[in-house]
Formats: sequence, C-alpha cells, structure tokens
Amino acid sequence: MRGFLIGRWQPFHKGHFSIIEEISKEVDELIIGIGSAQKSHTLNDPFTAGERIIMITKTLKKYNFPYYVIPINDIEFNAIWVSYVEALTPPFDVVYSGNPLVRELFMEKGYTVKKPKLYNRSEYSGREIRRRMLEGERWEHLVPEEVVEVIKEIDGVNRIRRLMESDYY
Amino acid sequence: MRGFLIGRWQPFHKGHFSIIEEISKEVDELIIGIGSAQKSHTLNDPFTAGERIIMITKTLKKYNFPYYVIPINDIEFNAIWVSYVEALTPPFDVVYSGNPLVRELFMEKGYTVKKPKLYNRSEYSGREIRRRMLEGERWEHLVPEEVVEVIKEIDGVNRIRRLMESDYY
Amino acid sequence: MRGFLIGRWQPFHKGHFSIIEEISKEVDELIIGIGSAQKSHTLNDPFTAGERIIMITKTLKKYNFPYYVIPINDIEFNAIWVSYVEALTPPFDVVYSGNPLVRELFMEKGYTVKKPKLYNRSEYSGREIRRRMLEGERWEHLVPEEVVEVIKEIDGVNRIRRLMESDYY
Amino acid sequence: MRGFLIGRWQPFHKGHFSIIEEISKEVDELIIGIGSAQKSHTLNDPFTAGERIIMITKTLKKYNFPYYVIPINDIEFNAIWVSYVEALTPPFDVVYSGNPLVRELFMEKGYTVKKPKLYNRSEYSGREIRRRMLEGERWEHLVPEEVVEVIKEIDGVNRIRRLMESDYY
Amino acid sequence: MRGFLIGRWQPFHKGHFSIIEEISKEVDELIIGIGSAQKSHTLNDPFTAGERIIMITKTLKKYNFPYYVIPINDIEFNAIWVSYVEALTPPFDVVYSGNPLVRELFMEKGYTVKKPKLYNRSEYSGREIRRRMLEGERWEHLVPEEVVEVIKEIDGVNRIRRLMESDYY
Amino acid sequence: MRGFLIGRWQPFHKGHFSIIEEISKEVDELIIGIGSAQKSHTLNDPFTAGERIIMITKTLKKYNFPYYVIPINDIEFNAIWVSYVEALTPPFDVVYSGNPLVRELFMEKGYTVKKPKLYNRSEYSGREIRRRMLEGERWEHLVPEEVVEVIKEIDGVNRIRRLMESDYY
Repeated sequence: MRGFLIGRWQPFHKGHFSIIEEISKEVDELIIGIGSAQKSHTLNDPFTAGERIIMITKTLKKYNFPYYVIPINDIEFNAIWVSYVEALTPPFDVVYSGNPLVRELFMEKGYTVKKPKLYNRSEYSGREIRRRMLEGERWEHLVPEEVVEVIKEIDGVNRIRRLMESDYY
Repeated sequence: MRGFLIGRWQPFHKGHFSIIEEISKEVDELIIGIGSAQKSHTLNDPFTAGERIIMITKTLKKYNFPYYVIPINDIEFNAIWVSYVEALTPPFDVVYSGNPLVRELFMEKGYTVKKPKLYNRSEYSGREIRRRMLEGERWEHLVPEEVVEVIKEIDGVNRIRRLMESDYY
Repeated sequence: MRGFLIGRWQPFHKGHFSIIEEISKEVDELIIGIGSAQKSHTLNDPFTAGERIIMITKTLKKYNFPYYVIPINDIEFNAIWVSYVEALTPPFDVVYSGNPLVRELFMEKGYTVKKPKLYNRSEYSGREIRRRMLEGERWEHLVPEEVVEVIKEIDGVNRIRRLMESDYY
Repeated sequence: MRGFLIGRWQPFHKGHFSIIEEISKEVDELIIGIGSAQKSHTLNDPFTAGERIIMITKTLKKYNFPYYVIPINDIEFNAIWVSYVEALTPPFDVVYSGNPLVRELFMEKGYTVKKPKLYNRSEYSGREIRRRMLEGERWEHLVPEEVVEVIKEIDGVNRIRRLMESDYY
Repeated sequence: MRGFLIGRWQPFHKGHFSIIEEISKEVDELIIGIGSAQKSHTLNDPFTAGERIIMITKTLKKYNFPYYVIPINDIEFNAIWVSYVEALTPPFDVVYSGNPLVRELFMEKGYTVKKPKLYNRSEYSGREIRRRMLEGERWEHLVPEEVVEVIKEIDGVNRIRRLMESDYY
Repeated sequence: MRGFLIGRWQPFHKGHFSIIEEISKEVDELIIGIGSAQKSHTLNDPFTAGERIIMITKTLKKYNFPYYVIPINDIEFNAIWVSYVEALTPPFDVVYSGNPLVRELFMEKGYTVKKPKLYNRSEYSGREIRRRMLEGERWEHLVPEEVVEVIKEIDGVNRIRRLMESDYY
C-alpha cells in the first residue's frame, strides 16, 4: 500500500518526522509532496522546494523506508488539484493531511483520508519555528539535526531576518 | 439588445434572481458570466463553476427568457479583462454589475454600465448565506428551491463545514 | 441523462448540426464544449469563442432542445484535462467526440465514450470549409444559414484571407 | 556601469525622482523596472504599466540621462524572479531597491545591492499620495508636474474614487 | 503622433533599421515592441529580449529620435493580444507591422495599420542571417556594426551552432 | 558530488539505464529530472510523469545508489529554465544531457556539462520503442523488465494505438 502525505515543510521539523514514523507503520511506500513548491523567500515560506527536499532526504537517509519526494506547485484551482497531484505522482491508496482543504478535495474524489496525530503542536509548528528564527530565540531543538545543518549552510535564519526589514516603496 | 451580468453566485440566491428578472425587462438576451470560475472549495467560494451553472439553469428553466451562462476565470490582469470577456462571449451592449471594479473596467472601454438594484441586501447576500450554512442557521428560504436541491445533492453545507476545521501545519 | 460533446466548431457546419440532432435522441440535455476557446485569428482557428457560441446558439434557437455552451480553453496538460472540464461544466454521463485523444482521456477516467457518425465527411469538414473560404469557392451551402449570417456580419471570410498574406519578418 | 532600479511607481513621485537623480551620479545607464506591470485599477495599484511608463519618460525627458524603462510582470515564484528580470533586460552591475525581498533575491545571486535614500518619506510615498487622491486632499505638489498632467488626462483621481464604491455581491 | 512597431528582431538588421528610419519621418515618437520576448536559445529565436534590447538601443543611440523599447511576451490568445499590448505601452496612433496577424488584430480594433517597405528582402532577413551564422557564411554586413559587437560579446554565433547539434533522447 | 540528468523517459529504456550506471561511477548522488512532466497521452509523450517515476524507481530499486526523481514541467521560457530547475532540486555540480538545448542553457550559466555515451542508439531509443508499440512489433527486450510490467499494468500499448485513430473534426 502506498500513502501520500503533503505539507509545506517550512521547515521540516520533529513533529513532521514523527508523523512520517507513524505512517511508515501503515504503508509500504510513502509519497511526500512538497506543497507550494514554487514559494520561497517570504516569512511564511522562506525555503525553496530544493532546500526542503534536502532537509527531508538528509533526515530520512538513515531510516530504511521507501519514499518519494515530489514538488507540487500551487495551481489556484482547487477542483482540479487532486488530478494534478495524480498526474505527477505514482498512484496511492491513502492520503494523510492536517489541512482541511486537502482532506476535503481528496475525500470528494473517493480517497481514504486520514488526519495524522501531531504531538506538542505549540512547539512543533512551522509558524512557531519561523517566529523563533526571526526573533533570535532557540529553534534548533525543534528540528532534526540534519535540518539545522541545511539551514545553516544556506544561511536561512539571516534570510528570514533580512526579509523582515521595512520597505518604503 | 444583449446584456452582460457578471457575479460569483456563491451561491445563486433570490436577490440574484430578482436582479435577472428586472434586467430581463430591459434586454432581449442576457449573458450571465460566472466570475472566478476557477475558484471552489473555499469558505468564500465554495461551489465550482459547474455547480453554479446548474444552480442558475435549473432556476431559470421555467422562465422563458433567452440567456447564456459563460464561466469566466480570473486572469489577475485588470487592464485586459474586458477584452478577455469579449473574446469568450457573444457581443453585448450593456453591462450590469454590483462590483465597482467591473463597472470601472467596462466604463473605461466605453460600455454603458448599470448598477442593478438589490432588495433586502442584509439577507440576500452570498456572504450571509454562507455564514448561515457554516453556523447551522436557516438559509434555505434565501435561495430558489432549485438551488436548495443542488446544494443538498452535492452535500454543499457539509463541504463548507469541513473546510472550517482547524489546520495544524 | 446528460451528454457532453466537444469540438472546435471552426466553423459550426451542417455535419456538426446533424451530430447534435442524433445525440438529442439519446440524451435529455447536452453540454456543447467550445474547444480551444482561447484560439482565434489563425487559418486553422479563425473564429473566437464568442463568435462560435453565437453560431451555435443562433442555429439551435428554433430547436426545442436543452443545451449548454461552455468555452473550454486548452490547458496543455492532458492528464488533468478531464478534471478541468468537469470543474467548468454540469455533470454528464456520456461523452461524444470524434477526437481520439478526447475519447482516450475520458475513457481512462471511466466515462462512456461514443464516436458520433459524421455524414459526407469530405465536405462537412471545418478544414474543407476554411479552404473554400480562402480560395473563394462556394462554402455557404455547407453550414446552417444562421452561420452564414454570423460570418458575414464579422466579415469572417476576409479575415481569413488577410491572415494568409505573406509575412516578411 | 549599468544600474537596475525597480519600483511600482503608483504613481511616480518626487521622492522617486530624487532617487533617480542620486543614482544617475553613480551609473552610466539605468534600467528602470516597472514592477507588478500587470496590475492596475486597484486602490493599491491604480495605474497601468503603460501609464506609468508615460509618467516616467515625460518627467525624465528634459534630463540628459540614458535609461531604459522595462515592464516586469509579477511571476509569483521568487526563486526564479532574478533570472526572469535578467532575461528581459540588458545586463546590469548594481541593483537599487527599497524592497527587502528584491534586495534579498538579488543579493543571493551575487549582485551588489544598494538601498536608495528616500527623503521626506511620510509625504513622498505612493500610499500617502493615493490616500490623498481618494480623500480629495492636495497631492499635486508631491509628484512632478508631468505626472500631474498624465493623471489628469486619464482622469486617474476619479478612477481611484470610483473603485472605492461599495460592492454588494 | 506616436507609432508602434513590433518585430522579433532575431537579430536586429539593416532592413529593420531602414524601416525605423522611414517611420521616424512620420511619427514623433516610436514604441518598438520586442515580440516573443520570452523566447531565446532556439534556432528561430536565438537571442533573449535583453540581448535584443541592447542591439536596438546601441544602434539607435547616435540618432536623436525618441523611442521606447518594450518587451512583449507571447500570450497565445490572439483575441486579447491588442489589449495586452495597450496595457504595457504608452498609447499610440498607428501600427507598423510586416506580420499579417498583427495587422489584422490591430485593424479589427480600429487602429490605422501600415505595412513598412522592406528593401533587399532576400538578404535583410532574420532567417537568412541566422542561416549564414549557422553555416559559417558572412553575415556581419547585413546588420549594424553595433549588433555585430553585441553578438560577438555574447558569443551568439557559437550559441546557434551548438543548438544545432544532434539530440539522441 | 551530485549530478543532474534530465530526460523525457518516454519510456525509460535500457539505454537510459546504462547511462545511469555509467554516471553512478562519477557522482555520489544523482537527481533524475522528468522533463516535460506535464505531457502525456500523445504519440510522442504517451506516459504521465507519475507513470515515468514508477518506471524509474521500480527499475532502480535493486541498485543501491542514492537518487532523487523530480518532475520538471516545461515552462517555454528558455532563459529562465535553469533557474527553474535549481529552485525545484537540491544543488548539483554537473549536468548530463543528450539534448543540445539543455547543455547550452546550463553551460551558459557556468555548469560543467557532459554528454552521456549512448550504446545501440538505433534501438535504445524512445522514438523507436514507441514506433514498435504502435506497429505491433517486439519492444519488450529494449526496456528493463520492470518497465514492461508498468506499461502492461496501465495498458500503455493500447493507449498509444487508440491515440493513433483518425480524427474527423
């Protein structure tokens, strides 16, 4: 059985990782969709699809679990989005998502849809981690160590801070 | 004389219907544009273009008035939007719209533009009807009975409620 | 039962009309898709979607048969095209098309697909009619008289001839 | 040395002009990018790219300084935006922008990036000028006289006011 | 009076230059549209919009004639193309083009359209010049000397030759 | 060192596989780009991106070599294509491609570009394999056995044959 899990992974954190660990007990293979793949360099979506792929694959390297990572651009046309995902990915049987729109769209097309359990939601949260980066608080303990490395290599924290500077146009 | 009336019809309600009744006295044929045709499955735009077409044509079936229903995608380029509408529709002489941007764009291209009268705006309002659906209040009396049927068939009220669930990504 | 018939209708001719007559015996309602809606002003696709809608609705006006005319832009992404059509139209049960790609795409999604019979294919052909227009031969007897009127009003034959002039860039 | 300066110029005002005067001392030629070129007819972006080009070229006509004005559409894909600008413009050595995202994107690609000084920011501000137009206050002294002429010719102030009318769809 | 002249300028050659010289006697200002601006790196369209802008502005620098160079992307939607051009450029009164589609589209919108005279068409031809580059024949005498310089700087002839290598995928 | 290899893989054949075997000796990780990802259901590009991903991953499963498979849509804008690929993939040091346009684009951006050796080009060719499928000749020995399985499961040969039927619109 193959599963499909989609998220924005901005950045990939320990909560995401534990979700994948749980799902890996239920499916034989997992497709990990990189949602909003075209977005980057904003406070909400600081990292490119390529950077997010590296975060995920470095972290999962040591685990012997078969998965695919597929970037999925937003298409701003909800009614055809499931079909778009199907065209870009191997077929799958079950969909995992914490996002109600994603669940609704797949459910209406007849998919089995599950809502993964997320532990420690107040800290294992992309929004919280980005806020900590911006305000100079500790964030490294909330993501896998491989993700810390990736973000340091690309100077990701400074990218986020520079994007916050005021604009006067 | 042919008229053009554009709206989002999310959903098509009795206020919309009375506007069409009024306009039908002034024109020989009416083009009904389905605005933001590509949008669906959001709280603001829950229904697909196809679903909205069905709502309108079922309601108007018993009236012997010649009209066209044409889905119009957003193109996010205001200065060419009138030209885009002209390419997709039969030619028309007068434009009806409650939206000031639509009126401005057509007016600048030299069209006669009219603002249809809307009765009972506080209740005959897409926003109010969607709010009532979401909160479990009575909404059925605000739309034509054919629209009630369509929304029941597609389980539209539950779609809106499911889209409201919290997201934790 | 609702049917879906898609074509480019460049222009709408008597062969098209006889197809619709046949289909009208099999279905209760017919959705007529205007394929390649965004195309116009080329030798292969001279008429805009709006012009093609007028040709069809003028011709069908005298027949008491319920139909919808929906412009469908090309999206250059075959694997999601059926989903795109579904989003823009009321639901349908059976698809009619002379185009093998259209038939294949709908068939793979589980639709019943039929190939309409076309009489007198050498003359009832968009390509043949456009060739006759270009070369100044008689074409009017191959299309419904309403279509002759529409093409005369928009000076369509001269449009095609002017497009054939040589280019030296 | 060639410089690149991008802005939305909604409208082009005296603060913009003084920035160009400053930059003209540092570079031999200047490319002036018209950002969000596809936007117009909104309260935030009332003027078309063509209208903004006229404002700039009329103002700069009397100054003997070589510059290019290039409209740049938004592409909603930050990671490829620099490459998009490079494809549409002559090559440049230094980038001037008040926008932190623009600076970040060019900086990550290795460009020298400078933040132009802006005098009298509370008044020499597109937002403030649009607010004054909307509320009927004096705005003409904040833009070059050529810009006043352009806006009068296109009846720009009334465009903005009409766009503010309430919408009831 | 302002004129609009559009071409692909692949590359800008002496025939193009003599057209501009002629037009400059008829209009006060000229908008030079860079057609198919998004295309480059093919045998038919080897040069980017930025490279073509440089060719034109370097050549015209010594002539004291006011002009604008505006890149215009293809939009593959003929019926709205005139409107698209209008949005991106200052207003103009007369259109010059050797391309019958361009002339038809502007003529149908009511513009005065002129077909510029082209001398020595067999040699002053983008296609012929690209062929000569590819086959190692002399081409430099067919373009302004500034264009020779630009093409040498970007190693344009070798670009074209490398694009001709066989492909085995 | 990470390499990037892009192809259309229509279908993935033994020639492709031997290229990957060769490259795997030179790099530590390989990104395999699925070119023209949005294309499918044509004689030239019969298989979806998802189907091609399955062909590749099933074939490579038994080899212990780290790779990524990333679908890459065509964007019809050559000058920004490299930047588009970079945004969607992990960073890479060397590019492998049999396509001269791909090589040129990466070379101009400063990448090391290599042309992989291909054995038995007359038979190990997507075009030849598709021709054989269409004409009912033997093709199975030209692709890995896992690819034979995938194509059988999706009834790929009949898809290609049905697409060849004549069209009479």
